[in-house]
Amino acid sequence: MKTIMIQEMPDHLGETVRIGGWLANKRSSGKIAFLQLRDGSGFVQGVVVKEIVGEELFAKARSITQETSLYITAEVTVDERSSFGFELQVKDVEIIHEAVDFPITPKQHGTEFLMDNRHLWLRSRKQHAIMKIRDEVIRSTYEFFHLNGFTKVDPPILTGSSPEGTSELFETKYFDENAYLSQSGQLYMEAAAMALGKVFSFGPTFRAEKSKTRRHLIEFWMIEPEMAFVQFEESLEVQEQFITHIMQSVIQNCSLELERLERDVSKLEKYKAPFPRVSYDDAITFLNENGFDDITWGDDFGAPHETAIAEHHDMPVFITHYPIGIKPFYMQPHPDRDDVVLCADLIAPEGYGEIIGGSERIYDYELMKQRIKEHNLDESAYAWYLDICKYGAVPHSGFGLGLERTVAWISGADHVRETIPFPRLLNRLYP
Amino acid sequence: MKTIMIQEMPDHLGETVRIGGWLANKRSSGKIAFLQLRDGSGFVQGVVVKEIVGEELFAKARSITQETSLYITAEVTVDERSSFGFELQVKDVEIIHEAVDFPITPKQHGTEFLMDNRHLWLRSRKQHAIMKIRDEVIRSTYEFFHLNGFTKVDPPILTGSSPEGTSELFETKYFDENAYLSQSGQLYMEAAAMALGKVFSFGPTFRAEKSKTRRHLIEFWMIEPEMAFVQFEESLEVQEQFITHIMQSVIQNCSLELERLERDVSKLEKYKAPFPRVSYDDAITFLNENGFDDITWGDDFGAPHETAIAEHHDMPVFITHYPIGIKPFYMQPHPDRDDVVLCADLIAPEGYGEIIGGSERIYDYELMKQRIKEHNLDESAYAWYLDICKYGAVPHSGFGLGLERTVAWISGADHVRETIPFPRLLNRLYP
Ligand SMILES: [Mg+2]
Ligand SMILES: [Mg+2]
Repeated sequence: MKTIMIQEMPDHLGETVRIGGWLANKRSSGKIAFLQLRDGSGFVQGVVVKEIVGEELFAKARSITQETSLYITAEVTVDERSSFGFELQVKDVEIIHEAVDFPITPKQHGTEFLMDNRHLWLRSRKQHAIMKIRDEVIRSTYEFFHLNGFTKVDPPILTGSSPEGTSELFETKYFDENAYLSQSGQLYMEAAAMALGKVFSFGPTFRAEKSKTRRHLIEFWMIEPEMAFVQFEESLEVQEQFITHIMQSVIQNCSLELERLERDVSKLEKYKAPFPRVSYDDAITFLNENGFDDITWGDDFGAPHETAIAEHHDMPVFITHYPIGIKPFYMQPHPDRDDVVLCADLIAPEGYGEIIGGSERIYDYELMKQRIKEHNLDESAYAWYLDICKYGAVPHSGFGLGLERTVAWISGADHVRETIPFPRLLNRLYP
Repeated sequence: MKTIMIQEMPDHLGETVRIGGWLANKRSSGKIAFLQLRDGSGFVQGVVVKEIVGEELFAKARSITQETSLYITAEVTVDERSSFGFELQVKDVEIIHEAVDFPITPKQHGTEFLMDNRHLWLRSRKQHAIMKIRDEVIRSTYEFFHLNGFTKVDPPILTGSSPEGTSELFETKYFDENAYLSQSGQLYMEAAAMALGKVFSFGPTFRAEKSKTRRHLIEFWMIEPEMAFVQFEESLEVQEQFITHIMQSVIQNCSLELERLERDVSKLEKYKAPFPRVSYDDAITFLNENGFDDITWGDDFGAPHETAIAEHHDMPVFITHYPIGIKPFYMQPHPDRDDVVLCADLIAPEGYGEIIGGSERIYDYELMKQRIKEHNLDESAYAWYLDICKYGAVPHSGFGLGLERTVAWISGADHVRETIPFPRLLNRLYP
């Protein structure tokens, strides 16, 4: 008899198989018991009929406690009523280990309690669905970049200098030196793009920020592509194709999970390239004309502003050409204006905020040196970075996508803490 | 006219295309110049014939300096003599930015100089090839685990406790607490496997070890799969299938890079599952019978011992069933012996050492508590980890593969520092 995973059941219709799993939930009458089983690959209903399995096994099945681990021997049959489409006609149950008083019951629990038990909370149907969607976003990200000729490059996490100041950086002793945890690998990715053309990173980044919003994590994962010979407009096209690819992949491969999360798929299906472009200038005008008197040209957007703009279009929106004064030093100036730069943020709809920030990069050596000086940065810490402009500089662009915000948006999660297996927040390092 | 990448040239035979790139090297006579061009996707020869392009362009082409960036307009033709199979008949050259005195010339340079210029060294043919092989190992790793039903799970990098001591850990202030950089995500991956069945991680890990060998990095990337309902022997099969998959993928997709590195592919082709299993007992006997009098039963292997065992088999070798005293607390004891555990290390041939360490894990609650006590570990720091044994415990196994050692082995690199874009070593945090 074959031991299979729940997700493999469609290939074993009519066969008697063995599945290792856990009891997620159950209900029963005097004659029939319904076991909600999970094995990590999926959830399925096991039907236990007293007349078929006998008194003893039926009593045993009825008494299984939540999260008890077991092997089920059963026939795979069709179940028209469930979205999965299959169920198990149970023939035998072998208990591996009985769970007593599993802390997370089907009733409501407080957030702190769930966070303290994150290692157990991950077993629940909703958290499982979000983790599967996160996995599909990751899988389809690698797929997209490899299909498009990018090389994965891992920038360092530990860096020896903190040229922009240390206030939001985690610091550690590195033998006799000080080191800082990376907030972004971008500068390294630019150097790598000069060696490998089109590159992307996918790794953890750290921000020691005392923010407590539903969009902020202390430790989060970023995807940072960087492309030699690619200019501003072309980079926007890569970005919208990338978002479209992961969205379509999740819709196609995570339909059960999206249904479990009660996510409206018809909404997701609309989020397809091309995405509207709105200039920063026009965005400010739009906001001022629509009741926002708390923002003027030169200010950065707050969450309510981003939400209003994205809601107006009901689509992810590129806000382009921000004022030079509110953006980092390395962004390429507009060719005809000295007050804005060739950059864009991508704002997700439904209030999920900025998911991508990107720009064309400066590649003129003198201009880069001047910008470093204007920002009062330590030029010696940027010596290696300046070499990009010194030896065969080329036009290049890049962007950074925040994984957890993207997963929150696609899965419809209320808070980014549910989109990473073990969230790190202010006052939250456990488990 | 289409702008393409060098790697796309095979699809454009006979066409006139435009390529953005850099001059890697050149040679010329009075009538013909050969430009060695690179664009990150590959290397190709551009042929400039004076009679065709005229005096002026020929003189310009001959004078291009190393690492100058340029756009080349050229016809794609067949080149039977090169492994790539194609070359460019140059029609026009447009200089983007002239590089003056690029520091890394075709002559020999010292290691420290190359490491100080790692951001530029990456542009060289050999480093480019190793980075492409690293990328293929990464790509095929995701492919393998996704094809086999695994979910990617990212364990936290920052952890709040250091139950095994802090001597080799990097420490940082985490607001009002102390946090440590992860050396391994295994315990978190075990918890995740109880929620998601088969999981794998792929992320950076940190070891503050004062080692200066060709096998050690301070910051390195690990792949850590964990599998519920999978026992020791089955885990070995997953491991050898995994190694076989990445090896075959590199052979198939990186033939130009392997050739550039002068790696003997016929050797790599032999490294296919199944891999020999040698018990620790037999390995000690073998070593003692073959001139090693510096090791007895109970000792851990040093690099020369591992090399001798792998050389004897000329294959990756599993050394199984190590003494309980030299392995971590969480390993499942042998069912019939109390002196060894159900673990295996995979030793790569050709002197590259241990690339995988793995084991079946304890899932008996009382035994796990006892082992934590025996190792003088702080039980309270393991409270969440003990929940794995408390609520529906199941047999499970996992392993960890070191990315850089694996890339070093496959690419034939002398030192792991060449297998990661920006290596972190003792006294090496720059660039
Ligand atoms: Mg913003
Ligand atoms: Mg070892």
